[in-house]
Amino acid sequence: MSIKSNKRKEIFIGLIIGLIKFSALHAQNYETMPRQLDSISAKIIQTALGQNKAIELLTELCVKIGHRLAGSPQAEKAVAWSKKKMEELGFENVRTEPVIVKRWIRGKEECFFRIGKEKQKRKINICAYGNSIGTPKEGITAEIVEVKSWDELKEKGEQVKGKIVFFNRPMDRSLISLGTAYGLAVDQRSNGAIEAAKYGAVGSMVRSMTTRIDDKPHTGQMHYVDSIPKIPSVAVSTKDADLLSGLLAEGKKITVTLKLECDTLPPVESANVVGEIKGCEYPDEIVLIGAHLDSWDKGHGAHDDGAGCAHIIEAVRLIKELNLKPKRTIRAVLFMNEENGLDGGYAYASKERPNEKHIAAIESDAGGFSPIGFGISDSTLHSKLSKYAYLFIPINADRFKIGGGGVDILPLMKTGVPGIGLIVDGQKYFDYHHSDNDTIDKVNERELALGSAAVAILAYIIAEE
Amino acid sequence: MSIKSNKRKEIFIGLIIGLIKFSALHAQNYETMPRQLDSISAKIIQTALGQNKAIELLTELCVKIGHRLAGSPQAEKAVAWSKKKMEELGFENVRTEPVIVKRWIRGKEECFFRIGKEKQKRKINICAYGNSIGTPKEGITAEIVEVKSWDELKEKGEQVKGKIVFFNRPMDRSLISLGTAYGLAVDQRSNGAIEAAKYGAVGSMVRSMTTRIDDKPHTGQMHYVDSIPKIPSVAVSTKDADLLSGLLAEGKKITVTLKLECDTLPPVESANVVGEIKGCEYPDEIVLIGAHLDSWDKGHGAHDDGAGCAHIIEAVRLIKELNLKPKRTIRAVLFMNEENGLDGGYAYASKERPNEKHIAAIESDAGGFSPIGFGISDSTLHSKLSKYAYLFIPINADRFKIGGGGVDILPLMKTGVPGIGLIVDGQKYFDYHHSDNDTIDKVNERELALGSAAVAILAYIIAEE
Repeated sequence: MSIKSNKRKEIFIGLIIGLIKFSALHAQNYETMPRQLDSISAKIIQTALGQNKAIELLTELCVKIGHRLAGSPQAEKAVAWSKKKMEELGFENVRTEPVIVKRWIRGKEECFFRIGKEKQKRKINICAYGNSIGTPKEGITAEIVEVKSWDELKEKGEQVKGKIVFFNRPMDRSLISLGTAYGLAVDQRSNGAIEAAKYGAVGSMVRSMTTRIDDKPHTGQMHYVDSIPKIPSVAVSTKDADLLSGLLAEGKKITVTLKLECDTLPPVESANVVGEIKGCEYPDEIVLIGAHLDSWDKGHGAHDDGAGCAHIIEAVRLIKELNLKPKRTIRAVLFMNEENGLDGGYAYASKERPNEKHIAAIESDAGGFSPIGFGISDSTLHSKLSKYAYLFIPINADRFKIGGGGVDILPLMKTGVPGIGLIVDGQKYFDYHHSDNDTIDKVNERELALGSAAVAILAYIIAEE
Repeated sequence: MSIKSNKRKEIFIGLIIGLIKFSALHAQNYETMPRQLDSISAKIIQTALGQNKAIELLTELCVKIGHRLAGSPQAEKAVAWSKKKMEELGFENVRTEPVIVKRWIRGKEECFFRIGKEKQKRKINICAYGNSIGTPKEGITAEIVEVKSWDELKEKGEQVKGKIVFFNRPMDRSLISLGTAYGLAVDQRSNGAIEAAKYGAVGSMVRSMTTRIDDKPHTGQMHYVDSIPKIPSVAVSTKDADLLSGLLAEGKKITVTLKLECDTLPPVESANVVGEIKGCEYPDEIVLIGAHLDSWDKGHGAHDDGAGCAHIIEAVRLIKELNLKPKRTIRAVLFMNEENGLDGGYAYASKERPNEKHIAAIESDAGGFSPIGFGISDSTLHSKLSKYAYLFIPINADRFKIGGGGVDILPLMKTGVPGIGLIVDGQKYFDYHHSDNDTIDKVNERELALGSAAVAILAYIIAEE
């Protein structure tokens, strides 16, 4: 759009009048609401955008430390960094709480294929899934068999014996919710190795969990069961998946060689990082806000879940910056190892905390995109909080839905604490998720700032009202 | 976020239940609505995301043609391309309508500065504003004087004589609406040269209209008045603006040399491109959907307004693809020269169209980001359309506001036609706007697809109901 002053001015004036009318329309339903909250939430938003600190936090985490798989040296650096950051920002009761985490390492990876009897090796972009076993040094070499459903695997049955099963059922791009599309496709990643091994396969290759067509494989967690032989399992980039599928459709025989050094080492001690603003009236009543500090060992872990960590630290900073004194304690928790075992979530929930009562737990683990609302697990809390949704209209984050929470806070939710998840505009999320695409340059500073403001406002409301 | 099947499944189920409840809550207010529209709009969304054609259109426009300033050879290519595209897609009455456009050309640009009496030249990232005059071949060399407000310029008055005024009032990043922040800062670009020349300045340099700090200058329209001497006017990148401002704050004298080849040539004939789905009951009643085909001569003009063009062509394609037969005519118009004179908008509105009646005009000129709703100029139409807002809830685009429209359709709106503007999540818009940042890789295919679906659904509703 251009600005031709007069013309544009008319439109601006129209927009502003429209906005005022729209706001008035909503405001009149809430005449009984404390007016102070209006100005506090406006101030939080203005400070988040104006001071623009969330992106600084995330940039430090991404650039100084990078990805940080649980148990890795980088994860320990991230623990130290976030503890120091909370202390520098004047959080109270800053501490680490020990967490024993699974330790899986990737090592070197190599994958190529040959067509028919050709000698030429062609590279495939793959990465091992977390918990996968490695291969012998010389790798495994086997023909691949494509399947697009569990039924097709069952039909092929013994045909896959000694071969590598290539699971190539794409996420359904026609669905509005990519979370749903992911949920409907990710069983290939989680269970592919188990199901393929049942029929004697020697490896599993899975189309990456994304609708984007590119060269980057997307990792994530897989698992084994004791009763079935363990076989290596890897993600293949969507571009290579399409290439292999096309060649197979032409009747070509494809032989893949896979070399993986990945391994599972003994568990190690790591930590959740905790800091607070102590409540001035009910310090033992806790409003937890959390995200996970670990990431997969790809990209920067910028959206998953560096952005959540920036949201949480910045939310507390904003409340302190504005010198707000909430009645209840707001506790920031950066959980360790959501990605590969939920160890931090369990450790937090199972720790004895005498006299403390958790009122609610808010999690940010959906990326640093524009916030659009909250999903609230508990319908009573949902109806209580919904009357404050109007405070989020100016940033278009007033969609308060029943149902939600977060993975890290799930163990706490199981003890009866209501869980709340920040909902963001997630259309790009799976472009980046668990891959080398998930880097700091994919995060917009203003969208990130708005997310931190949304968390700060909701945490403050719950702590105060 | 990770998926640990069971844990994640619980959350997914919770979310889905929440969504169903939420939808039911909204649906019950609309029991009287024709149920057919529900399935039509769902089908439009599914087809837009599943077939994913909007990004193909935009990629062709951006990569094959690139930026397309009115009057340029690229603009003529864009006219031919979009006419051919509409014909290939089976639009009816495909035609061009002549538009006489201003013709401004950029030519080569060079800018550097010297500190004090140093000989070292240091490059500044600048670009001329549209309509700026050029400089003599040897350029102009003058000291710069920074001002942050019109008042400061007035105070400095005769001090700027023979110098270059450096307008450095940033867009206010603490505002939620960057459109408002832009509106409050862009007078420096529009009027800077006029105001500076009143005091005898020989040039105008303006901090780029963006909150992003980077090396890319952002161009845009400026103008002169006949009674004041014309001086060259350029945008300077925000990074360089900060650098220069810092040096000036240290008391350094900064001398800038500016060489511009830009020039205004005689007007040339270009065209609006028009195509339709003829209404089956009231073919003379027109629902116009439009965007502008021209762009500034920077980047690809991807978001501004290639995305709008893709929205419009794809919206018509979606309606045809689903074999919908609207009662009224849906007319796609790609306007020429919104950016530098609104020539296409005026040409369209002033053309005699006997027997035709425009019911409404919808414009997409806010970028290819996730749609969030519509701004509707007319309060009667707003209340009529608002009862269909529930159809847009699944894609979070149900914010129907009073006030809005678009620049291209403004001349039509002045004749009494209600105007509607697609509203999108614009937090990143000014990162790209009018600069080399505005390239195809900044557009997400799914967000673009949702915008086209939103336009298609609203156009169909108006044409049908």
